[in-house]
Formats: sequence, C-alpha cells, structure tokens
Amino acid sequence: MHIAVLNGPNLDLLGERETHIYGTTTLAALEESVRRRGEELGVSVEWIQSNHEGELVDAVHGFRSRVDGAVVNPAAYTHTSWALRDAFLAAPIPFVEVHLSNVFDREPERRRSLFADLACGFVAGFGPRGYLLALDALIDILRDD
Amino acid sequence: MHIAVLNGPNLDLLGERETHIYGTTTLAALEESVRRRGEELGVSVEWIQSNHEGELVDAVHGFRSRVDGAVVNPAAYTHTSWALRDAFLAAPIPFVEVHLSNVFDREPERRRSLFADLACGFVAGFGPRGYLLALDALIDILRDD
Amino acid sequence: MHIAVLNGPNLDLLGERETHIYGTTTLAALEESVRRRGEELGVSVEWIQSNHEGELVDAVHGFRSRVDGAVVNPAAYTHTSWALRDAFLAAPIPFVEVHLSNVFDREPERRRSLFADLACGFVAGFGPRGYLLALDALIDILRDD
Amino acid sequence: MHIAVLNGPNLDLLGERETHIYGTTTLAALEESVRRRGEELGVSVEWIQSNHEGELVDAVHGFRSRVDGAVVNPAAYTHTSWALRDAFLAAPIPFVEVHLSNVFDREPERRRSLFADLACGFVAGFGPRGYLLALDALIDILRDD
Amino acid sequence: MHIAVLNGPNLDLLGERETHIYGTTTLAALEESVRRRGEELGVSVEWIQSNHEGELVDAVHGFRSRVDGAVVNPAAYTHTSWALRDAFLAAPIPFVEVHLSNVFDREPERRRSLFADLACGFVAGFGPRGYLLALDALIDILRDD
Amino acid sequence: MHIAVLNGPNLDLLGERETHIYGTTTLAALEESVRRRGEELGVSVEWIQSNHEGELVDAVHGFRSRVDGAVVNPAAYTHTSWALRDAFLAAPIPFVEVHLSNVFDREPERRRSLFADLACGFVAGFGPRGYLLALDALIDILRDD
Amino acid sequence: MHIAVLNGPNLDLLGERETHIYGTTTLAALEESVRRRGEELGVSVEWIQSNHEGELVDAVHGFRSRVDGAVVNPAAYTHTSWALRDAFLAAPIPFVEVHLSNVFDREPERRRSLFADLACGFVAGFGPRGYLLALDALIDILRDD
Amino acid sequence: MHIAVLNGPNLDLLGERETHIYGTTTLAALEESVRRRGEELGVSVEWIQSNHEGELVDAVHGFRSRVDGAVVNPAAYTHTSWALRDAFLAAPIPFVEVHLSNVFDREPERRRSLFADLACGFVAGFGPRGYLLALDALIDILRDD
Amino acid sequence: MHIAVLNGPNLDLLGERETHIYGTTTLAALEESVRRRGEELGVSVEWIQSNHEGELVDAVHGFRSRVDGAVVNPAAYTHTSWALRDAFLAAPIPFVEVHLSNVFDREPERRRSLFADLACGFVAGFGPRGYLLALDALIDILRDD
Amino acid sequence: MHIAVLNGPNLDLLGERETHIYGTTTLAALEESVRRRGEELGVSVEWIQSNHEGELVDAVHGFRSRVDGAVVNPAAYTHTSWALRDAFLAAPIPFVEVHLSNVFDREPERRRSLFADLACGFVAGFGPRGYLLALDALIDILRDD
Amino acid sequence: MHIAVLNGPNLDLLGERETHIYGTTTLAALEESVRRRGEELGVSVEWIQSNHEGELVDAVHGFRSRVDGAVVNPAAYTHTSWALRDAFLAAPIPFVEVHLSNVFDREPERRRSLFADLACGFVAGFGPRGYLLALDALIDILRDD
Amino acid sequence: MHIAVLNGPNLDLLGERETHIYGTTTLAALEESVRRRGEELGVSVEWIQSNHEGELVDAVHGFRSRVDGAVVNPAAYTHTSWALRDAFLAAPIPFVEVHLSNVFDREPERRRSLFADLACGFVAGFGPRGYLLALDALIDILRDD
Repeated sequence: MHIAVLNGPNLDLLGERETHIYGTTTLAALEESVRRRGEELGVSVEWIQSNHEGELVDAVHGFRSRVDGAVVNPAAYTHTSWALRDAFLAAPIPFVEVHLSNVFDREPERRRSLFADLACGFVAGFGPRGYLLALDALIDILRDD
Repeated sequence: MHIAVLNGPNLDLLGERETHIYGTTTLAALEESVRRRGEELGVSVEWIQSNHEGELVDAVHGFRSRVDGAVVNPAAYTHTSWALRDAFLAAPIPFVEVHLSNVFDREPERRRSLFADLACGFVAGFGPRGYLLALDALIDILRDD
Repeated sequence: MHIAVLNGPNLDLLGERETHIYGTTTLAALEESVRRRGEELGVSVEWIQSNHEGELVDAVHGFRSRVDGAVVNPAAYTHTSWALRDAFLAAPIPFVEVHLSNVFDREPERRRSLFADLACGFVAGFGPRGYLLALDALIDILRDD
Repeated sequence: MHIAVLNGPNLDLLGERETHIYGTTTLAALEESVRRRGEELGVSVEWIQSNHEGELVDAVHGFRSRVDGAVVNPAAYTHTSWALRDAFLAAPIPFVEVHLSNVFDREPERRRSLFADLACGFVAGFGPRGYLLALDALIDILRDD
Repeated sequence: MHIAVLNGPNLDLLGERETHIYGTTTLAALEESVRRRGEELGVSVEWIQSNHEGELVDAVHGFRSRVDGAVVNPAAYTHTSWALRDAFLAAPIPFVEVHLSNVFDREPERRRSLFADLACGFVAGFGPRGYLLALDALIDILRDD
Repeated sequence: MHIAVLNGPNLDLLGERETHIYGTTTLAALEESVRRRGEELGVSVEWIQSNHEGELVDAVHGFRSRVDGAVVNPAAYTHTSWALRDAFLAAPIPFVEVHLSNVFDREPERRRSLFADLACGFVAGFGPRGYLLALDALIDILRDD
Repeated sequence: MHIAVLNGPNLDLLGERETHIYGTTTLAALEESVRRRGEELGVSVEWIQSNHEGELVDAVHGFRSRVDGAVVNPAAYTHTSWALRDAFLAAPIPFVEVHLSNVFDREPERRRSLFADLACGFVAGFGPRGYLLALDALIDILRDD
Repeated sequence: MHIAVLNGPNLDLLGERETHIYGTTTLAALEESVRRRGEELGVSVEWIQSNHEGELVDAVHGFRSRVDGAVVNPAAYTHTSWALRDAFLAAPIPFVEVHLSNVFDREPERRRSLFADLACGFVAGFGPRGYLLALDALIDILRDD
Repeated sequence: MHIAVLNGPNLDLLGERETHIYGTTTLAALEESVRRRGEELGVSVEWIQSNHEGELVDAVHGFRSRVDGAVVNPAAYTHTSWALRDAFLAAPIPFVEVHLSNVFDREPERRRSLFADLACGFVAGFGPRGYLLALDALIDILRDD
Repeated sequence: MHIAVLNGPNLDLLGERETHIYGTTTLAALEESVRRRGEELGVSVEWIQSNHEGELVDAVHGFRSRVDGAVVNPAAYTHTSWALRDAFLAAPIPFVEVHLSNVFDREPERRRSLFADLACGFVAGFGPRGYLLALDALIDILRDD
Repeated sequence: MHIAVLNGPNLDLLGERETHIYGTTTLAALEESVRRRGEELGVSVEWIQSNHEGELVDAVHGFRSRVDGAVVNPAAYTHTSWALRDAFLAAPIPFVEVHLSNVFDREPERRRSLFADLACGFVAGFGPRGYLLALDALIDILRDD
Repeated sequence: MHIAVLNGPNLDLLGERETHIYGTTTLAALEESVRRRGEELGVSVEWIQSNHEGELVDAVHGFRSRVDGAVVNPAAYTHTSWALRDAFLAAPIPFVEVHLSNVFDREPERRRSLFADLACGFVAGFGPRGYLLALDALIDILRDD
C-alpha cells in the first residue's frame, strides 16, 4: 500500500513560525514520524510540500495511477483553491483532510474547507499527532474496503 | 484516568436508523468497543446518552469534579445548544468533538458547531472508528499536559 | 390502523392563551374531537403533548414500531429543533404537519419549518379543524399506499 | 353558496407533465372531482385556469360581486405576482391557498408565497386531494362565519 | 405580592464558573439576597432554576395563576428558546429581564434576546446587583399599575 | 402636445378597494380631472389602464411615435416588471412616475421601483392629486427643454 | 397659514456646486420663488438652511407651535439623521419631503430616506420646481383637512 | 427537423432601440437570416415573439408535440418568469438559451437566468450572430442524440 | 462624588411628545428627581442636554477631569454617533446607559447601541424611573471599586 | 490571423476524469479538432494549458504582441483568479469565454465568472463543440471589426 | 500655495487619550510639525479641528475659494458623515485622507471611508508622521498638475 | 539596512497597460527611482516581481533572515491570497502596503486587503510616488524602533 501526504503552502516553515499555534515540531521531523508509523503499518509514504498551487495540482494528477490514498493538509489553499478541489474531483482517490491547528477557533475564513465534503474524514486541532491519526484512519478505511 | 463519552439526541438509535449514513454498529456495540480500548490504555470510561438537552447540561456539570477529559458527540445539539456550550464553558475539561458522518458533506446547518472552538480537536466522517481515534488523541493530550 | 398525534410546547394551554390567535377550544376538547373522528374512520389515536424537547424525541423513537402515521404540530420546536427533525429522519413514518394559526401571517421566524420538507403534507391556519383535515388526509394517504 | 377555483400557469398540463411530482390526474379530472364534491355539499363551483397573469387579475376582480370564497393555486405566480396579490387585497373574499406538491421540499424560491398571509388557510403536498381538503375547509369556514 | 425569579441553564454554577465574567457570588447567596430584599419590600419570592427548557416552560405555565410578576434571567435560552418565549406569550405576567454580564460586550449571538420585546424592562451588566435593581423596578411597576 | 397616462394593474378598482389607503375617487373621475387639467394647459391626454403586463409593454411601444411624455403609475409592476422597464428603455420618452399612496410607509417591497431611475421625477403619497402634480411638472419639463 | 421650508447641509451652495446634478438656481433665488408662490397662495413662508444637524433639530422643535406644515429637503441628513427623524416624530406637523435630484438614479445610499414614511408625500427629481410642487401639494392637503 | 425560436418582450423593437447595445439588425432581418440558415441545414423554423408572458407560456405548451428543439431568448423574462420556467419543465424539449448582449457586463439582475440550468447550452454577447451559433449547436446536439 | 447625566437629542421635549411611549414627566421634572436622589445619596449631579452631537462630544471631553461617573441616554445618537462613542473611549469614565422606552420593542435600528459594550451596565424600558435605577447602580459600582 | 486557446487547470485530464460531465474527448483530440477548424478558416492556433495561475498570467502577457484574439476556458480560475482577470485587463485582446459544462447547472460558485464581463461573448454547456462555436464566433468578430 | 488641514472629532484629545493606539504627540505638537514642514516647502498651512459636523461642513465650504488642497483626517466622521462627503463633492479641491491608526486592524466599521474614493490618495497607520507624508504627497501632486 | 520591495502579478506591465489608471512609468523606472532613494537614505533595496503566487510565498520565506522591512504591493493577490498572508504571518517582518491606484474608487473587491491589518501602514492612490512615500515611512519606523 502506498500513501501520499500532501502539504500546502507555508508548511515548510513548520516549527519555525507561529509556534504558539503550530508547535515546535519541524516538517522534517513530522515527515520522519509519519514515515516511521507507515513502516510499522507496512505502508510506504510519499511526502510532498509546495507553496505553488499549480505544483500541488500537478502532484494530485500524478497520484492517480500511483497511490492508494492520501493525507492532505491544504493549508491556506483549504479556503481558496477551486483548482486543487477540481484536481481531487478528477483524481478521486480516498483522502483524509488534516489540520494542525483548531481551524474552528481562528478567523471565520479558516472554517470553510473546499475539500472536506470530498474527504473520507476530517481531523483538526491535534497538532502533528493529527497526521498520525489521519494515517491510521486512512489505512483502516483502505483495508476495510 | 477517567474519561466521559457524551452522546447527544437520537444516537440511541445508532445502527437502526439511516444506516447508509451512520452504518450498522449499534450504540451498545460502540460503547463496548470504546470501553475495551479504554481498558487497553488503562482508562475508565463513563458513557452517557440522552435526548434531553437539560440532562446533557446536568451531565456536564457532574463531570466537573470527576472526569479528566471527554469525547463528545453532541449530535443535533451541535448546531443549536447554547446551553450545552455554556455548560462546557462552565466546566472547562478538555474534550474532543467527534461526529460519525462527514458533517461537511450534508446540509449547510450541519457544518456549524457551537463546540468546535472549545474542543482540543475535531474528528468527523470516520463512523464508529472516529470514537476510538478521538479517545486515543484525548488520552495522548491528557498524558502530554 | 394506529395514528399518533404529537403536540409540542405550550399547546397544553390551548383555549386558555392568546385566544384571538388560537381560539377557545381546549386541548382536551381537540383530543376528544380527533379521537371521535378516528373512531368514525376505524382508526385508533395516540395523543401526546409535551413541553420537553427530549420527551418529544423519545416519543418519536417509541412510535417507530407502533404507529402507521402521525399528525404533528411541533409548535415552537417547528423552527428550532434539529433534534426532533433528526428523530423523524430516524423514525421515518409518514406524517402530516399541522399548525393552528396561519404561520405565514406572523413573525418571519414562524414561517420556517424544520419538518415540512419531511412531511407528506402541510396544513396551516384552520385552527382546531386543521387537525381533522390532517387526519383525513393522512388516513387517505396510508390507505392509498 | 358559490365558490371559485383559480388555477395559475401550467396547470393546464396537469397529469401530462412531471408526473413524478404532480401525479397523473388531469386538470379536467380534478375539476370534475371538485365539482362533484361541491354538489355533495350544496355548493356551485366556478373553475378558472389561465397562464396569463392579467387574466387571473381580471378574474379576481370579477369574483368580487359573485363568489363567496375561493380555492386558489397560484402555481408559479405564487412567488412573483404582486399584481395578483394586490387583486386579492382589492377583492378581499375568503380564500384557501392550495399546492399540489410539497413546496417545502423543492427549490427555496418555491417556499415563499405572496398569498399565504392573506389566505384563511394553507394546504400543500397532498396532490389533487388537497383541493378537496381546501374546499371542505373553506365551506366550513364560510358556514361558521 | 408574590414574585417569581426564573433562572435558566448553568446558573446553578454561578460563583463557581467563569468568575472573571460572572463574579464569585453563588446562586444560593444571590437567592438569599433577593429574598431578603423582597422581605424588606413586603414581597414573597419564588425561586426557580433549571437546565431543562421544558421545566422552565412548565414553570411559566405554573406562574399564571400564582405570581404577580417575575424577574427572568433566561441565560443561554435567551437566544434560542422560542418555546419559552411562547410560554411568556401564553402567560402574560409582567416581567423584567436581567443578565449578569454585559451581553453587549460578548459574542454577537449574546446580544439577541427573544424575551426583551415582551419584558417591561431590561437590566444587564451589573452582576448580582442587577437582580435587586430588577426586583425594585418590577415592584415599582406593579404598585404603579 | 400629447401626453399618455399609463395605469398598471388593479387601478381599475380605484375608489372601490382599500379606500383607507387609496381614497374614494374612482379611476374614471381621476381620468376626468386629469383630462380637464390637460385641456386647461393645452395638452391632449391619452389614458390607458391594464392588468396585463404585455398590454402595458405594447402600449409603451405604441407611445414611441405618438406621445411627447407620460405620467406612469406602474402599480404592482413597479416592483417586478423588468419587461416594462425594458420597454421604457426602448421607448425613451420623458415620463414622471406617480404613486397614489406613500410607498415608503408600506411593505418594504413597495419601496423599490424599477422605473424611478429612468423617470424625470417621482411623486408619491398625494393620492389622486399626485397625478395633477405629475402632469404639471411633466408639461413644465417638456416646455423647458 | 404659515409654512416652514427646511433645507439641510450643503444646500447653501446650490447653484454653485455640481450644477450638472443640481442646476444653476441659487438657494436665494429658490427662496425668492417659493416666497412669491406662497404670497400668491396667501401663505407666509419661513426659510431655514443649516449645515448643523443640531440646529435643524432645534428648528423643528421651534416649528411645533408656530407652523402649519413644512417642506423639507433634509439633503445628506435624509439618509443618516435619526435625531432629525425623532424631531419630526416629536413635532408631528404635516410635511412634504422634496429632493432636487432624482435620488433613485444615484448611489444606493441616496435611495433610503429616514423621513419618507413620516411625510405626507414625496417629490424628487424636478430640481427647484420640485419645491413649488411640494408647496402646492402641502397647501392643498392643509386646506383639505 | 423542426425548430422553434422564442423571443421575449421588447425584441419586436430590435434594431430600433438602444442600438449601442443591441445593434441595428431588425427582428425581421434576424428571422430571415435564421430561416435561411435553417434551410441550408435542412431544418424548418417556427418564429415567435411576444411581449405577453402568458402567450409565451402558451407557445411552449404548443411546442410539446410539434418541435424537436428550441432557441430561446427570454429577454426580460429571463430574470423573473417562474411561469415560463415551469413551462419548460413541463415541456422538456432541448433548447439553447441565447442573449444578444453580454449579460455579464450589465446590471447585476441581468446575470441571473431562470432558464440556464435547464438549457443544453448558453450563448451570450455575440449580437444577432449568437442566434446562428445557437441554431448550429442545437442541430448538432439533436443529430447526435 | 460628582456624577454627570448626559441627555441626547429631542429629550428636551420629554413629557410633551409621544407620551404613549415616553410618559408625561418633563425633562425638568426628571432632572429634579435625579438631583434629589443624588442629594439623598451624597452625590452632586451635573445635568446636560443637547441636540448637537458636537456639544455632546465637547461635554464628554469636559467630563474627563471633573466627574466620577455618568448616566448616559444618547437617544437617537445611540445608533449613529461614532464621534460620541470615540469621545467615551477617549474619556473612559464609568457610565451606565439608560433608555426610557423598551428599545427592543421598537424599530430594529433602535436595538443597536454604539455605547452598550463600553458601559458598566444597561437599563431600558422603565421610563423616568430608569434614571434612578441607573444612578443607584452607578453609585454602587463607584463605591465598590 | 493568429488565435490563442488558453486552457486552465485540470483540463489536461479532459476525457479521463468525470466523463459524465466533461465527455470522453481528450484535450489532445480537442486541440486537434480546433486546429483543423482553424486551418479550414485560414487561422493559425496557439494552444496553451497550465495548472499554474502564474503561467497563465505570463501566457496572457505574451499574447499581447502576438495574437489577434483568444478562446479562453479559465476552468477553476474562472471563479477565483483576479490575477488572470487583471492580465486580460492589461492585455486587452478580444476573447471568447468557453466552458465545457453547463456552469449554470452546478454549484453556485461555478456560476460566477471574473472574465465574462470582459469577454466578447460567452459559450457554455456544449462540451468540446463549444470550442468550435467560440472559434467561429471569434473569427467572425475579428473579421467584422 | 495654501493648504488646509482638517481634523475631525476627538482629535483635540490627541496625545491624551488611548495612547497605545494614537501615541503621545499632542494635536498642538502635530500642528507645529506640519506647519514647519509646510514652511520648508514654501506652503502656508491652515489648521482646523472641530467636534461639530456642521462646523466641518462650513469649513469645507470656506475652503473653496481659498485653499489649493487639503489634508483631511475625518476621524469618526469618516464612517458616517454623508454631509461632509457632500461638502467635498461641492468643493472639489484635491485632498489626501490620513488616519493615525491602522484602520484596517480595528473594528470593521473603521474600514469604511465615505471619503477615500474622492481623495487623491490615502495614508493610514503611520501615526503623526502620516500627516507629513500626506502633506509631501499633496504638494507633489499640486505641483505636478 | 536592507529593504525588500515585493511586486505582485501584472506589475511587470506597468507603464504599458491601463495607463489612465496606472500612469506611464515602467516598473524598471520605478525600481530605479526606489533604488536611488534607498541609496540617498543609506539603505539597500532588493526588488522582486512575480506573477506566481508560489514564488511570492517563497520570496517572503527567503526574506526572513535577510531583510529589515519590506514595501509590498500584492496587486491582485491583495484580495485573494491567504497563502501570501500566511507567509507574512510566518515571516513577521515590518512592511508597508502600497497600491498605485486609489483602490477605494474601483470595484468593491479591490477594497478588501488580506494584508492591511498586518502592515505597519497603508498608502494608496499616489501612483509610483507612493512607493517612495512607503519607503520613507518604513525607514523612519525601522529607525525609530
């Protein structure tokens, strides 16, 4: 089983920026812990981060033939990218949406996701551990189906 | 460690109603699986379900001195109960909000939660397994802090 | 054939309050006339009134295995009770929604029903005789199907 | 007693169009059954259908001196015709508003009536039998007053 | 003269919860001080608190024949309970609405009251002393009329 | 100089309906007094009333080559008829909009005119004498230009 | 008979500013022509212009015992001055609202008047001649009553 | 193959009115060029124009048994006629919606069509040549299916 | 202790205007009764009324060094005066907002206060006696702090 | 004559994704048929597709000196890209907007175009044949001017 | 060259109020530094501050014949004064709008200016130095034109 | 001191496009004049322009360790780019927002900035000279702090 993890804009600064909201774990450390959990569960992980909407769209197109499911943190594009939404409509692999912060306790615009209705499930507010929960849930779902 | 699981209105019919949305697991079976997971993790579980807003408010008041955290599925009261929201403000124990269905893929009113901004985290769309994810995450958080 | 008639909050004061809107028939007299009409049509009637949202939800759960259809006047819960709406979604028996007053000629909030789209039909503005119209129509529908 | 039944645009196609919503009874058959019920109750019925807003306004003006009450299905003009509403304000005979389909379970625009606040009562969702309910109720009201 | 004081949900925790907003006076102490003031003014006081909307509706029904006026703090039901509003419409005794906190300096939803237009007067922001002001004003009004 | 006076739906009942709003002058009497004032001012008057939107549109098309200006009371079509508005755009003769009642003191929908921004001027609330004011003003404007 | 004419802010610049909208007649010339018409009709005219909201409120208070009616052009205060509106509620003399320009063909904010629902009638778009129309109409109304 | 072309209100003035928006081609010339194109493509054309909403509804009813498809320019009724929309729902022949002007570059109300979601396709902004494009596309679609 | 009482526009007519809403007490009588209560409580009272927004702003600036607290009835400026609000922000003395009428039972615009969130407390609907309640409460608060 | 065809995000998957909406023609096949039609009409075609907003903006900048007109399907950027809109404002070549699906029969957000008011014309709902219609119309327009 | 600097309500308290937002520079010191900069640039400065909307309107009227341009800080009137906006429309001298605080980082109402669309330019957030920037820019513009 | 100047999409066409709005200065000339002013003030300037949102986000990430402050013209991304806003949240260097045109006098969407509340200050409407004002102000602020 092969799982993609897609990270949207500004997540490259994770652990360095706004640590009162996002914590001090860096993206590299998060990737490491997700890969390790994948290994434990017999799953290979493909890790992507980009600040470019077009690159994220391209990545989702590339997923189509290759991955069994995805964990997706669209970051700022959560609220604005119809292009990325359309990419998931065009490449309908099962995915779990994950957010590090509690998006419900921030600006109102952060509460609206263009992806959540397409996702298998939604996890928010648990910081980096949310990725592990999302991965666990996704693998469960993929093995069930 | 003692954890309460609070279930809002109509969840007593779980597994019997709208199974295309909520699946066939009954509330009793769900309780059983949550208790079992709690035992594995060394945590006792207190299980509450009520169709009465006032009873749920009373229950949260009762939690205050007794529980370390809660998993909460407010069901239909998610969208309307300022009384229950005020109860959590008054009894500020850490809790995770959980929904069986993908609330983002249903009527617009189902997308608004009066609890999510107070919760540690939010889990939706995974069916009964979402309760286990929520329990895992909650215990992690409680042990971290 | 067994029909439930469900009456929401404040209907216990029927005939005693706001008689310029609701008339002078009491709830007991209304129950009596509905039962009599039921008898004429060979139908037994179960009569419920409560000011407690939770009791109304419980009642609908109780209906599921017992009644063939319902006449429902949700009163003030018409506009606010997602819990009661969910109960009808979970216990999908045919029902007719009835209102004593012309809800379209009152405050704007009174015009929005959380039940009307689930009902077989909608009757408003005829005072107590609306219950008899609703009963007639419901029995017609049940006998047709 | 003389009752007018006013039918708005496109009802001439009743029974031929969108039969999943409106059923297979034709307007002629409906007229026939309404007349028959009128006869049983000792009431003469005047039947009008037009696709022309102006003709409907003219008809209501004509009612003024001639009819005791009306059953009105304004169809599409329900939502848009201030001219027809003004006609009823100018010719204030008692009338019952009736709709064949459950207008509450369709497009949001179908939920707004420019007539309902002027009507004695409102009946929707019962198909052709709704006209009979409306007629019964109207006659009751006229005989009461 | 007999006055009821009606307290809505979560007020049982007064003095124990969110003391930066509501202060440290408990509900028992508040009841005590209101009773004492009542005695000074030759008025008996009936004290009610419930977290259950239905119980509050029942209580208002009970008031009808027994009390001369009421001081009402509907708490969270201020913003959502059409059932309780209808109860006051059905039992039209004079009442003063009181809020402990300055509802105008909190979330926007806290600014909308379903009761204020029915009340004789409105008092907010003075903490527990607001009850005494409300009682004084109510008695003045009752004695004037 | 030749002036058209255009009267929208339900004005044929003027003086017979809602006399507390519109007064007791009939449309015939109003026509008479407008014609007389026209004669005094050396102006011929063409008088039109219809309940049919299409006839009013046709009438405006007919105006184009024949009239120097118009006094227009679109009645209910004031608020809804884009077709009539487009007719005035297509036949851009100068016109004054007139309303018998004070449209600003009635339902909010009555405050929005689809014609007022196209008109030379707007007169409302003076009852039948508003037509004479409108005629005076229109002739003044036509003679000025 | 004594009539006040009240002119709001910036009307002192009439004839000097935005002449494409307001024309070239100065306020002094307009006052002159209104006074002359008043004389012809046996009516004395009191003329007021102020850029100060408070002065206009004071002026309306002063009217109460002295004038029989008023012609009012509130200019920019049309849309914003609840204080001036309250003054007319407190000093309920009959008045006609007049605007020089066609307020319906300008910014949306210019379409909303806080006075129109209190006025006997409303005249807009005729430039300075609108004052004379308003005066004529007002005197007619005062003589009728 | 037989095609109807339906033209809404004010199109009879095409080429004579607002030529900066609609161009100088008359409706007769447009009809001529559409018929000629129809002949080239082996299709007969039925041409209808009316300013009367009811006549347009009647025409659509007449289409049902006679035409294979339609080109429809509802003009002002585009934005307001639920009656005409219902006619197309009742007579579900394939049709293409066409507008002469770029409706997206005009008043906001011109952007909303009650027909576009029912149409096979939508063409706007090309002036008279848009009818030919619509005809071509419609015939293509009819021949494909 | 020195207390200012600030009265907004049109309050100079108190007791003379709209007595069904505001009662028959004049402003002078109200001032007298407030001063008397002040004397009883050992507090001097400074009384201000103006119809001029700028004078009220100037007055609040003057308060800064001189008064310990204020009772404020901004009247019509309640809903519109950001200038007066800014004055209270700049001169942050404790104040109680008071309204004679029940602002919640009038036009919707009357429900919005630009001052209430800055006030210590809010009193409405009690007529002139509301000033005494406000004074009592204010003095209590000032003596507590 | 040289024409650019600009294709927005996810159109590279045309024919492979959501074929119930977009059909089975691939983008390559569509390009081929557009080029062939161009050749027939003596026009060269430049074909661009990108998932990157910035590349599309760059492409439009490049058009300025090189192309005579464009056919533009902005896909998901239709609804969100002010940057691309600004690019067309900065490079004001004539263009036709085209959409494969009937955007009016999908999610409401799909109905709003940031380009349509700038376009010569708008074509939607005809699938791949819409590109040919757009090309025909564009060439007609360019040859006319 | 002669420049007016217009200061709206509450700016007389600059440096004394809300110093965390507005800083500690007094209005006198600000005036001094603006005058000095004016002298350096060969420009005379006229300085106005008022809390009275009418005085500010009068001042703008006075500007017309005397000043070449203005620096305007309308303070609270920025958001509410149509009278002052109309004054600038009537006296169309070039002006720069300046705000001390970052109006975009405060209450939403502070973000709407009735002047900004009339201004040459807009400067906000720089505290007192914003006046100097505005003066520099204004003089540049006046010398350019 | 090192300052970055960030230019959003389509600014590469400055001086070539829409010169009635943006003037004829090219971006190169603007860069030149900004650099020159930087040199005069002893500050080095880093100049960036991109049409790609992702490149702008990357650029801001790069700023973090290198620049002391920034002048930012986000152009079209002003209104839509949450990704770029998040970049500034993550790289919280002081910056001034600048716009060439008066954004308040254009389409309503141009009035909303996702950056202004994060900026030290805001300058709009002065054309290229606005960059110099912004640079001056920024340097002042950086030297003050």
